[in-house]
Amino acid sequence: MVEDKKTKPSKELPLGFVDRQEKELLIRDFVISNIKEVMIKYGFQYLETPSFEYTDSIGKFLPDKERPDEGVFSFRDEKKWLSLRYDLTAPLARYVAKNYLELPKPFKRYQLGTVWRNEKPGPGRYREFLQFDADYIGTKNLMADAELCVLISEILEKCGLTKKDYNIKFSTRKLTDELFDNLEINSSDRRLKILRSLDKLDRLGWAEVEKLLKKGRKDKSGDFTTGADLTKDQIKKIRAIFKEKEWPDERDFKKEGSISDINQITENLNNVFEFYNYTFNPEIIRGLEYYTGPVFEVNLNFDVKNSKGQAIQFGSIGGGGRYDNLVSNFGNFDCPATGISIGLDRLVFALMQKKDFKIKTTRPVVICVFDKSKNKEYVGILNKLRMSNISSEIYPGESKLKKQMEYANKIDSPAVILYGDNEIKSGKATLKNLKTGKESSVKIEDLANEIKKLL
Amino acid sequence: MVEDKKTKPSKELPLGFVDRQEKELLIRDFVISNIKEVMIKYGFQYLETPSFEYTDSIGKFLPDKERPDEGVFSFRDEKKWLSLRYDLTAPLARYVAKNYLELPKPFKRYQLGTVWRNEKPGPGRYREFLQFDADYIGTKNLMADAELCVLISEILEKCGLTKKDYNIKFSTRKLTDELFDNLEINSSDRRLKILRSLDKLDRLGWAEVEKLLKKGRKDKSGDFTTGADLTKDQIKKIRAIFKEKEWPDERDFKKEGSISDINQITENLNNVFEFYNYTFNPEIIRGLEYYTGPVFEVNLNFDVKNSKGQAIQFGSIGGGGRYDNLVSNFGNFDCPATGISIGLDRLVFALMQKKDFKIKTTRPVVICVFDKSKNKEYVGILNKLRMSNISSEIYPGESKLKKQMEYANKIDSPAVILYGDNEIKSGKATLKNLKTGKESSVKIEDLANEIKKLL
Repeated sequence: MVEDKKTKPSKELPLGFVDRQEKELLIRDFVISNIKEVMIKYGFQYLETPSFEYTDSIGKFLPDKERPDEGVFSFRDEKKWLSLRYDLTAPLARYVAKNYLELPKPFKRYQLGTVWRNEKPGPGRYREFLQFDADYIGTKNLMADAELCVLISEILEKCGLTKKDYNIKFSTRKLTDELFDNLEINSSDRRLKILRSLDKLDRLGWAEVEKLLKKGRKDKSGDFTTGADLTKDQIKKIRAIFKEKEWPDERDFKKEGSISDINQITENLNNVFEFYNYTFNPEIIRGLEYYTGPVFEVNLNFDVKNSKGQAIQFGSIGGGGRYDNLVSNFGNFDCPATGISIGLDRLVFALMQKKDFKIKTTRPVVICVFDKSKNKEYVGILNKLRMSNISSEIYPGESKLKKQMEYANKIDSPAVILYGDNEIKSGKATLKNLKTGKESSVKIEDLANEIKKLL
Repeated sequence: MVEDKKTKPSKELPLGFVDRQEKELLIRDFVISNIKEVMIKYGFQYLETPSFEYTDSIGKFLPDKERPDEGVFSFRDEKKWLSLRYDLTAPLARYVAKNYLELPKPFKRYQLGTVWRNEKPGPGRYREFLQFDADYIGTKNLMADAELCVLISEILEKCGLTKKDYNIKFSTRKLTDELFDNLEINSSDRRLKILRSLDKLDRLGWAEVEKLLKKGRKDKSGDFTTGADLTKDQIKKIRAIFKEKEWPDERDFKKEGSISDINQITENLNNVFEFYNYTFNPEIIRGLEYYTGPVFEVNLNFDVKNSKGQAIQFGSIGGGGRYDNLVSNFGNFDCPATGISIGLDRLVFALMQKKDFKIKTTRPVVICVFDKSKNKEYVGILNKLRMSNISSEIYPGESKLKKQMEYANKIDSPAVILYGDNEIKSGKATLKNLKTGKESSVKIEDLANEIKKLL
């Protein structure tokens, strides 16, 4: 075809996006198959909502909500704005509202899917994530919230982690709600600003967070975030809990509010599920606006290194919490709910670094090509191997034997099969083990068995 | 939290996007696991490129390329346009160009991933698709193209189809290239316009396609597509091949061009692979611009009905072809390639309608809640069932027994377990089979076995 040559297109990826290789994908598949097994065992239904939603269906709970394309990837459709989902919870709420009459109540569903955040790209900051979510819709029962911890724990242990490798932290949004009541901070925008600031405690530390609670903070790149403009007295009280870890006078908190949440979660975990791998920690906030009760975070305790080999503060691989008002935003539904998410890319990244974690990649045995007119003979061998479920291929290129051997080594093939004129005459192929270099002469009908021995 | 109520958000999905239910997802998982098995057996590597690419890396091969947001979902990043991939081939070419030195040559990879098309939504027209792709990069050898047919065939048959259920059609882009040479149609844009018109033959029929070859065509919605403005004589020659199915004088075609492609594909399929479930059909065009040689289409032959129960012309579930110039667009690479895609949503949609195709969904046994203070006893039973890998749950809501039974029936649970005060005293639970209605009194330690019998 006649083609006008223009400037070469970019070979690079946009910041925040990555290509993923086989080893990582195989570990991810292993994690996903464990998740699916646990989900079936726990009685969750499998559901998939699409990547796009109307922006107004999911938009208002977003971290940065001033512009429709800030925080999310949004596109103007013929009539309305569409957005790529930034989590799997907001789309689930839309799904439940849409199908409210038909759904069982409670409704337990799980989903695996990519979510996108149009955040400022930076080192190690991605804009596309694969998430797993499990949710209980239509129950106020905090046993559900507790079971989420048990369920995540079973998934992590199926993936090879031990109780020492992870820990679940929890708190409740009612604690901050009641704190804000006491401090007479009533604007929802301001409350959200404070929550988002406190959510950064583990990453930034108290001194930086305090700037966000005051007039604002300039980050390393020079960008300025306006602060919540709290009074000295308000900051002092927040500081007492979050910096000094002083548990305030219980009378400031509601028995049927935060204290009840904390007690019920503890009671269910300890006494009902006999699950002890958790801690209560008021610093657990979670960034999303929609939480109304208990909130959770799943943390890994083992060393994880970044791409430069430096041990890093890895942080959480997931979390979640109760969102009793999210579905009711869509109409007159009383639909309390709770759920948890795992960031699979982060979990897989950590698993890849666990010393004792092994995953097998299969590379094909390569049948070398001496003469294209003998392709039928090569295919004869190929079919025998594949019938025995042996990963195998005829050298797919057009180069000479030397290059074929280089190719087999390059793809880390376990063995090559040489079937030239002499071999065809004798009815035996030469099998060369590429790990040991050993060659042996093998009858065609015995090839599959010999290869299975060397794999 | 203080929340100002605004207008209710939309519960609906944007046109062209759907929620997918468990049955469909389980069939899809079954198809995907078959694909992965075949891919390993055939020696393909697993790769994943991200959803987004720079628009200029993938944009120019797009069906509607006038505006960056026509045909694809694009949005402006800080510096450049980003697009959601519309296929998995263009991103693969970018990946190969980016990693050219490190990759084995040839390079065989497969990918599973969502692609997006920002097309005019209409009935049955989706804007999000899950695709499977397998490609050979860096080989001119048409044995690779032939093996793609064998490989797709093995996947379809592993999914339960027989040779009668599907057929592969092939042609080569060289045939149309040579035809255009003969007709002295030299502009690449015009050639593409004609190809896209001919690609619609099976859907629109010759009369409508002829309008597209002349001045243009108004579709049912009233939208007008400008035609290729060919002369009567040019149309007559195209009509001879595509309408009258007259094979033109062989001297018009090149021995080392289209005829060689057709002969080599036929020779490899018949004599090397002994695969006969294909036909040569010059009507096979494929809509994407980048093909340069053999092109394929995979068609299902069994009846498929639409959502209204009407039998429909289902069309292809996938296809592909050779694209020898796509990678070289990125730089000075000589990198011939060929590949094939399957549209998984379409394949699953068809499989769901095959009478003899069954897939099992697992629903949990429900342990009823008489008294929350006995949760520990219920969890005792639950743990025993789950240890035996039985899908099970404690009723997750807060309603009375009658509603619990309604819930169990609604989720299609196989059985409920009643463990009230009397049962706890006797150490036996009541197991109620919800299919037969039969109740039996079962010792706790025997529950798992009894449930396995009734499943």
